[in-house]
Amino acid sequence: LGAGQLGRMLALAGYPLGLKFRFVDPTAGSPAGQVAPQTVADYSDTGALGELEACDVVTFEFENVPDYAADRLAATTQVFPPPAALRVSQDRLVEKTCLTSLGFATPRFEPVHDEASLRQAVDRLGVPSVLKTRRFGYDGKGQCVLKQASDLPRALALVGAGPCILEEFVAFEREVSLIAVRARDGSVASYPLIENRHEGGILRRSTVPSMTGPVVEREAAASVQRLLEHLDYVGVLTVEFFEVGGQLLANEFAPRVHNSGHLTIEAAGTSQFENHLRAIAGLPLGSTHCPGPAAMLNLIGTLPDKTAVLRVPGTHYHDYGKEVRPGRKVGHITITADTHAELETRVAEVSALL
Amino acid sequence: LGAGQLGRMLALAGYPLGLKFRFVDPTAGSPAGQVAPQTVADYSDTGALGELEACDVVTFEFENVPDYAADRLAATTQVFPPPAALRVSQDRLVEKTCLTSLGFATPRFEPVHDEASLRQAVDRLGVPSVLKTRRFGYDGKGQCVLKQASDLPRALALVGAGPCILEEFVAFEREVSLIAVRARDGSVASYPLIENRHEGGILRRSTVPSMTGPVVEREAAASVQRLLEHLDYVGVLTVEFFEVGGQLLANEFAPRVHNSGHLTIEAAGTSQFENHLRAIAGLPLGSTHCPGPAAMLNLIGTLPDKTAVLRVPGTHYHDYGKEVRPGRKVGHITITADTHAELETRVAEVSALL
Repeated sequence: LGAGQLGRMLALAGYPLGLKFRFVDPTAGSPAGQVAPQTVADYSDTGALGELEACDVVTFEFENVPDYAADRLAATTQVFPPPAALRVSQDRLVEKTCLTSLGFATPRFEPVHDEASLRQAVDRLGVPSVLKTRRFGYDGKGQCVLKQASDLPRALALVGAGPCILEEFVAFEREVSLIAVRARDGSVASYPLIENRHEGGILRRSTVPSMTGPVVEREAAASVQRLLEHLDYVGVLTVEFFEVGGQLLANEFAPRVHNSGHLTIEAAGTSQFENHLRAIAGLPLGSTHCPGPAAMLNLIGTLPDKTAVLRVPGTHYHDYGKEVRPGRKVGHITITADTHAELETRVAEVSALL
Repeated sequence: LGAGQLGRMLALAGYPLGLKFRFVDPTAGSPAGQVAPQTVADYSDTGALGELEACDVVTFEFENVPDYAADRLAATTQVFPPPAALRVSQDRLVEKTCLTSLGFATPRFEPVHDEASLRQAVDRLGVPSVLKTRRFGYDGKGQCVLKQASDLPRALALVGAGPCILEEFVAFEREVSLIAVRARDGSVASYPLIENRHEGGILRRSTVPSMTGPVVEREAAASVQRLLEHLDYVGVLTVEFFEVGGQLLANEFAPRVHNSGHLTIEAAGTSQFENHLRAIAGLPLGSTHCPGPAAMLNLIGTLPDKTAVLRVPGTHYHDYGKEVRPGRKVGHITITADTHAELETRVAEVSALL
């Protein structure tokens, strides 16, 4: 379900494995629909869902799959990751509660459903703090930072749209993500921590390895393994963390391949896309080892000059086949190098072209 | 033109670059036709050729493209590699003559067109020697080894089918191939020499790096660069050599991506497929460096158990989406490792599954 760039990269990773694909997405000519058959239909379209029931396995490239669609498919075919895991990730309050129950440190949070609970939550967490809708937020949408009394009306408007969660504002040193994968037989593998930089709520750059120490990294991997086992998960899952004072605070998880993991196509023994497919198809997992440094730069709203980019050594170009539009992720560039210094030189050269 | 596995791997390498593909091939459901639009038509079909004229660039996955098809396309759109290079490679006598004129050492050869010229050629080259049809030979087809007088009738039958070339039989120590690529701007890059092992005329295993010494390797790369420049070539070209007594004898060249180069998908900075596309699309070439050892095993006639293969570390599975049939190349497995010893252990494990 979903024929965006994640679906496209899944298909491109899956063809060599001998897998065949069918996508459902309401937008004709979607990125994945350019490389595989696409049924242009809404996710609630019973005809389209019926077509997917002929597949051996159904999976998703986004977490906001309608409940009934996932449940209906799960009744007749195999659906990975399990719909129950989707449901946890669809609600920030349920998600954070799940994470804390499994021993993840998280920013402090309070549920908010009206003005009274908002005021109480602000009293407890102080300002600055961040109000987020519990459902359907992504890329910084459905969020509002509270710094002072004058921010309250804006916050109340968000609460009016549906139940929210207030989280303490974390002045993090860096953001990192841990991408892990669990196979049908229960085996788990995780990629090295990836360091991420967002601007305007959208991921701009990911880098591997991160500057986080190995002890903290091992703890994060162990926590994510507990989460995968708790959810009886099959496929790739990504946990985003804030790093502050040498500690990782879990912010959220995505039950899918993740933008920060695109660099695994070139940087890892097996990409996140191939490993997701291996997992859901019941195949053994591939190596998640990343032998050298690498960075990914998102292409947002516009595509740079391809010739100029590819003239920089170690660059790998990824065009999603989308129409360019302001704020839209239309591609990414992965840059590999032998040393950190070489990587930074190349990243600077490419950045100058964006 | 051609929608086999080479076309399929070209398409999969080209989608990230934002390229779009259309294939022409007479067989419906061909490997490339499963991942891109395919016009099911003969290579002489004027309607199908007309469709290709709408493409920015036309290329080939095989060398036996009909002359008039290549010429007709070249009259209205860009055709790379240039049809003139195809013509040289289509005729073993023209090809060997071209190679020797450029300073390549080759096995000695003589043209053969009837019984008298066959007898004269055998007198000159002695036995054992190898008679080959000048045109349309591949994977050991259209060949006949002459060892004794009783082989003459079989040889004469081959001569009856069309003009031939007799080549001295070379008791080579190993077979190697050099894959190089020339961009539209004339820049050239070459992959390391790849060592190949054939059985029954079909490639079984390729390994990088080869055991050939660096001086010989540099000379081979320089010779291939001369060939590329002589042909005003654009795209990937592969020269196959016999190594004997520390010298490389050029056997033939293929004006295309090559089976021995499939391991570049995982083993090189940029695969032969991506570099062919970069070249013909007028983009800069990518790195041909292969940092570690790797091997490729062809899957011939049957596909092994995917789970068992992927359980061996460092394996990468490539299923071409073909129906299995005796003697048919239906896929390949690339195996990467950190050391030669580790590679050989893994190759042995995978070989036991084939």
